[in-house]
Amino acid sequence: MSKIVVDMMGGDLGPEAAKEGVRSFKTLHPETELILVGDPKTLADMEGYHIVPSTSVVKMDAGALDALRDKSSSMSLAIKTVIDEKADAVVSCGSTGAFLTMASLKLKKIKGVLRPALITSFPTVIKGKSVTILDIGASTENSAEELAQFALMGSLYSEFVNGVHSPKVALLANGSEAGKGTEAGKAAYTLIKQDSKIDFVGNREARDVMSGDLDCVVSDGYSGNVLLKATEGTAKAMSFLMKKAFKKNILTMLGYLFAKGGIKEMAHTMDYKAVGGALLLGVNGAAIKAHGNCDGYAWKSALCVADKIAKAHLVEKIEKRITNE
Amino acid sequence: MSKIVVDMMGGDLGPEAAKEGVRSFKTLHPETELILVGDPKTLADMEGYHIVPSTSVVKMDAGALDALRDKSSSMSLAIKTVIDEKADAVVSCGSTGAFLTMASLKLKKIKGVLRPALITSFPTVIKGKSVTILDIGASTENSAEELAQFALMGSLYSEFVNGVHSPKVALLANGSEAGKGTEAGKAAYTLIKQDSKIDFVGNREARDVMSGDLDCVVSDGYSGNVLLKATEGTAKAMSFLMKKAFKKNILTMLGYLFAKGGIKEMAHTMDYKAVGGALLLGVNGAAIKAHGNCDGYAWKSALCVADKIAKAHLVEKIEKRITNE
Repeated sequence: MSKIVVDMMGGDLGPEAAKEGVRSFKTLHPETELILVGDPKTLADMEGYHIVPSTSVVKMDAGALDALRDKSSSMSLAIKTVIDEKADAVVSCGSTGAFLTMASLKLKKIKGVLRPALITSFPTVIKGKSVTILDIGASTENSAEELAQFALMGSLYSEFVNGVHSPKVALLANGSEAGKGTEAGKAAYTLIKQDSKIDFVGNREARDVMSGDLDCVVSDGYSGNVLLKATEGTAKAMSFLMKKAFKKNILTMLGYLFAKGGIKEMAHTMDYKAVGGALLLGVNGAAIKAHGNCDGYAWKSALCVADKIAKAHLVEKIEKRITNE
Repeated sequence: MSKIVVDMMGGDLGPEAAKEGVRSFKTLHPETELILVGDPKTLADMEGYHIVPSTSVVKMDAGALDALRDKSSSMSLAIKTVIDEKADAVVSCGSTGAFLTMASLKLKKIKGVLRPALITSFPTVIKGKSVTILDIGASTENSAEELAQFALMGSLYSEFVNGVHSPKVALLANGSEAGKGTEAGKAAYTLIKQDSKIDFVGNREARDVMSGDLDCVVSDGYSGNVLLKATEGTAKAMSFLMKKAFKKNILTMLGYLFAKGGIKEMAHTMDYKAVGGALLLGVNGAAIKAHGNCDGYAWKSALCVADKIAKAHLVEKIEKRITNE
């Protein structure tokens, strides 16, 4: 049976959104055990759930050090509960920096893993198809060996969490030809190519990520972070300009009313809330960071990702693949 | 008087687009001397222009080495002409790799410059305001000293080519706090901060680039390339989805007809053709690479950028600032 710990207290929308997400998830997956960490009064209406009481909340803008000091916060206790209860995963939508530092330090690395990586899913132009990217910021610089492990972990994630048979894995580079990339990237290219269990398609540029041709893109943490945030920034700028375009005059406003159906479908394709946040892969127990402003729907999506990881025994699969080699 | 050499033969749309651009530019700036390099038969209708005859054309997919071998190509002769005629700039829309390698090797670096950088302008959400980014791919890895020189060159470019008084310069990083970034980035932060002539606003994330708050963003060539191409890829994906949204049904198609005015204005804001391509900064004579599929309008924009650089004596200004320090 899979067991997931939930930090109920963080996030911009507070515990009510978390409760809504937990209830929707539980309707879908009554077999999964959930352990909720939070203020007992706030969670008084969550009858029938296993509750671990906490007395404080890590602030959204908290630094990692402050957060580490407060042992009674819902975030700190949620991570401790993963260890105490041998849970499969932990979900939080509190401060990203605090959560990831805490999870990296307290949940030990999977045997053989050199560095955990932060992985997320991006939308692509193909409806319902996403692409996973790692590392998007757990590290700044990465060695070739770390990058090769990211390819292995990302491939397993795409297969067992996103359900892609024989996922196509690419290495992010400044050109699609072999021989492009940083020094570490070039050495990683050779290592990944040697791994017969990875369907490695070679180097790809950042402009190909959303094309729908790839299932997983491997990058060092710094450039992966640039990729993530450039995509976010461009999508935000274009959405802003699009809204402005529709508000230009009475005709364009009328145009929006007619086109609304299509525009909403487009917005849904680009909706990050459907993909379930980012998660730290490579530690014992996946640590899932849902988006800070996540609503009930986003919470449910994040819990579903946690559940898939648990049921797929992803941690064991990673350990087996890495130590076998 | 400023003097610009034009490689008339490259590009997907061929010499006719180049001719159109040259003629439009000449109407605006009759005082600037243009030297056109190309097949004399093809350029027979360009009476009154100084023509340097060439006999071959570098293919759009040519590698740098092949291109370097062919000394009679329009691209090779255009770069040679910059040196022979002491011209201020050269514009080509041929193969990017070939042109940049050739320009880097043949046009010597400005005295004191450690590494030339490839600079381009991005649109922002503010109409008519662009932001310059460098390096977008001339190098792969860069030292702190190189990054600091990029800040200086980018600041001068923003001031004298884009006409921004006291341009705001930021360093690309994986977080906006001081102390974020790669090792080279962190050291560059300190160096740039010490330069009182640069209005340095500190670290910025990739998502802030198009916000309209910045005039110049400095990055190592690898991450700058990821930034450029992620922006391109996201814009392309969103345009694709938007077109699909408008084609969904008869209502959405009608909506497009009404909203067209606003949408076209948005497309114009995002139009890369208006910003004039990318250019190699830090060599004697700016080498401007117009977009491969550039039309007459894009050619004219690229020539206008070349003309501004020439008239601003940007090369001399860079040398003076760098050697004075």
